[in-house]
Amino acid sequence: MSTKSREIRLASRPSGWPTPDNFALATVELPDPAPGQVLVRNLVMSVDPYMRGRMNDVKSYVPPFQVGEALTGGAVGEVVASNSPRLKPGDVVLHDFGWRDYALADAAGFRTVDATAVPSVNAYLSVLGGIGLTAWVGLVDIAAMRAGETVFVSGAAGAVGSLAGQFAKLRGAARVVGSAGSAEKVRLLTERFGYDAAFNYKDGPVRPQLKRAAPDGIDVYFDNVGGEHLTASLAALRRGGRVAVCGAISGYNETQPPPGPDNLSLLISKRLTMRGFLVFDHYDRLPDFLAEVGGWLAAGQIHVEETVVDGLEQAPAAFLGMLRGENIGKALVRLDR
Amino acid sequence: MSTKSREIRLASRPSGWPTPDNFALATVELPDPAPGQVLVRNLVMSVDPYMRGRMNDVKSYVPPFQVGEALTGGAVGEVVASNSPRLKPGDVVLHDFGWRDYALADAAGFRTVDATAVPSVNAYLSVLGGIGLTAWVGLVDIAAMRAGETVFVSGAAGAVGSLAGQFAKLRGAARVVGSAGSAEKVRLLTERFGYDAAFNYKDGPVRPQLKRAAPDGIDVYFDNVGGEHLTASLAALRRGGRVAVCGAISGYNETQPPPGPDNLSLLISKRLTMRGFLVFDHYDRLPDFLAEVGGWLAAGQIHVEETVVDGLEQAPAAFLGMLRGENIGKALVRLDR
Repeated sequence: MSTKSREIRLASRPSGWPTPDNFALATVELPDPAPGQVLVRNLVMSVDPYMRGRMNDVKSYVPPFQVGEALTGGAVGEVVASNSPRLKPGDVVLHDFGWRDYALADAAGFRTVDATAVPSVNAYLSVLGGIGLTAWVGLVDIAAMRAGETVFVSGAAGAVGSLAGQFAKLRGAARVVGSAGSAEKVRLLTERFGYDAAFNYKDGPVRPQLKRAAPDGIDVYFDNVGGEHLTASLAALRRGGRVAVCGAISGYNETQPPPGPDNLSLLISKRLTMRGFLVFDHYDRLPDFLAEVGGWLAAGQIHVEETVVDGLEQAPAAFLGMLRGENIGKALVRLDR
Repeated sequence: MSTKSREIRLASRPSGWPTPDNFALATVELPDPAPGQVLVRNLVMSVDPYMRGRMNDVKSYVPPFQVGEALTGGAVGEVVASNSPRLKPGDVVLHDFGWRDYALADAAGFRTVDATAVPSVNAYLSVLGGIGLTAWVGLVDIAAMRAGETVFVSGAAGAVGSLAGQFAKLRGAARVVGSAGSAEKVRLLTERFGYDAAFNYKDGPVRPQLKRAAPDGIDVYFDNVGGEHLTASLAALRRGGRVAVCGAISGYNETQPPPGPDNLSLLISKRLTMRGFLVFDHYDRLPDFLAEVGGWLAAGQIHVEETVVDGLEQAPAAFLGMLRGENIGKALVRLDR
């Protein structure tokens, strides 16, 4: 008995900003699981900035998507048929076969999660998943934030940023400043995400706005966007400051790479450290991360925000909206209608 | 009895490249040492890239030189009169009152050095001084170089660079590559300074030349120059690579800051670290540094190169020549004619 499954394929590679034409919805017939395989009905999938890089034909830390093939990405689903002793129907699993109704693959590609431990399995794609670990590792290990410091987060209303700011406060930061791209987001930063000060980078140059929000400078910059924010942060960092370079979304859709900061020599005079990282290298920190963040979550100390779109056919629009910054918190696509 | 002493003063602040007109030679009459003071006849002084920054009216890690006042900088001299129990005539001292024939100051400003332990006291301004410590700390602590790695050094024939490459080899680097700005320097890099490969950055773009010299990429970049070299190095660095940001001389004489590297997002995909440093923060490492480098020096394992100019009146020309890259190894001015 085969299963009809829709999937979103890469129709063509974008140059600059992607458009809906770069995606195509297709339907495939999936056979029953072969020995060792399981069939998973997806419940929810993630759209993330790093996927933009995979649309280019560029070798990077993850291989590019292939034209004509289905995209991949984080998702949570429920096993509906299993030909493996490792998983049984009803198991809820986290995996990388998003962008489709059903995933058919070797059981080793799926990790069971406890759906009863969280208000929604969405948490495994946000606060308790790679997104949360990214925010936590960036702050704790890469930037080595210490209690009493001032922390600046860009993209602060986004999936990672909305958590990074809260983690910073919970770990004793004296002041946490965030930037975002709308008045609504800026309001949420201080009202819901615990930021002490926030500004809209579209209101004017970043540097004076950051100066007003952190008049005594910053010790840590959690960089999700690169570009002007990075330049302004180098100017604002105090001696011995650290930059956790997590993302550079400001440049992801540029056809020409934007010039870098013209004040990098401040690295010397202020003894600054910039360190790039990818969460994939840091899964050894998962137990410590889950112990701390799981505790905060259970205690109701973290506000988790999601922007959820319904339906696989809406996934390209959700992805494009996320790239434009239309989401607040984690951008997700619900697939279990 | 007073002492006639000549000194070089800052006559005016340069915009862009300094010229001889920015300096003025003056003669002063120094009184006998007041209680606590000593009078020191300078033997040799140092000209260093960081002095260029001090000619600007910009607050930085060291205060700017003042127009109309004598410049300062590293020097070695001999105590000729003392009104302090801390020092006696004949003592050889290291201090920061260069750019003058005689230094008159509180004894606390001078540190005795052992003139008999070295072939020339010049060593205290180069391999055994801040210059040597800069090269060693940059490599060992900032870049955390490990045996078996490939190291790239820019400004490799300069004071710091000519030592950094040798230290890297002595610490077990698999391959050490250097760049410099003349055919003569490039020849010395491999013939005298132990570099495995070297190129002249004036022969063409840095990136392909670095690719030829280090076809498998680099693990550590010791940056003395910034600019194009930094951009090329980010491209060449392997996963987990480190940049010790020591200097950015390519921009020191620019009236407009040059744009930064357009490939900083490689920090993320390749998990790179860039860390700026100043030797002043690392004097706690002096004992370890002296134990290791002093040992190499005594064993004849280090080639120390100097470019020495004679006479205080030639100090501005020596400084300007150093900024243009005319020196090989440490640029010094001999004052004891």
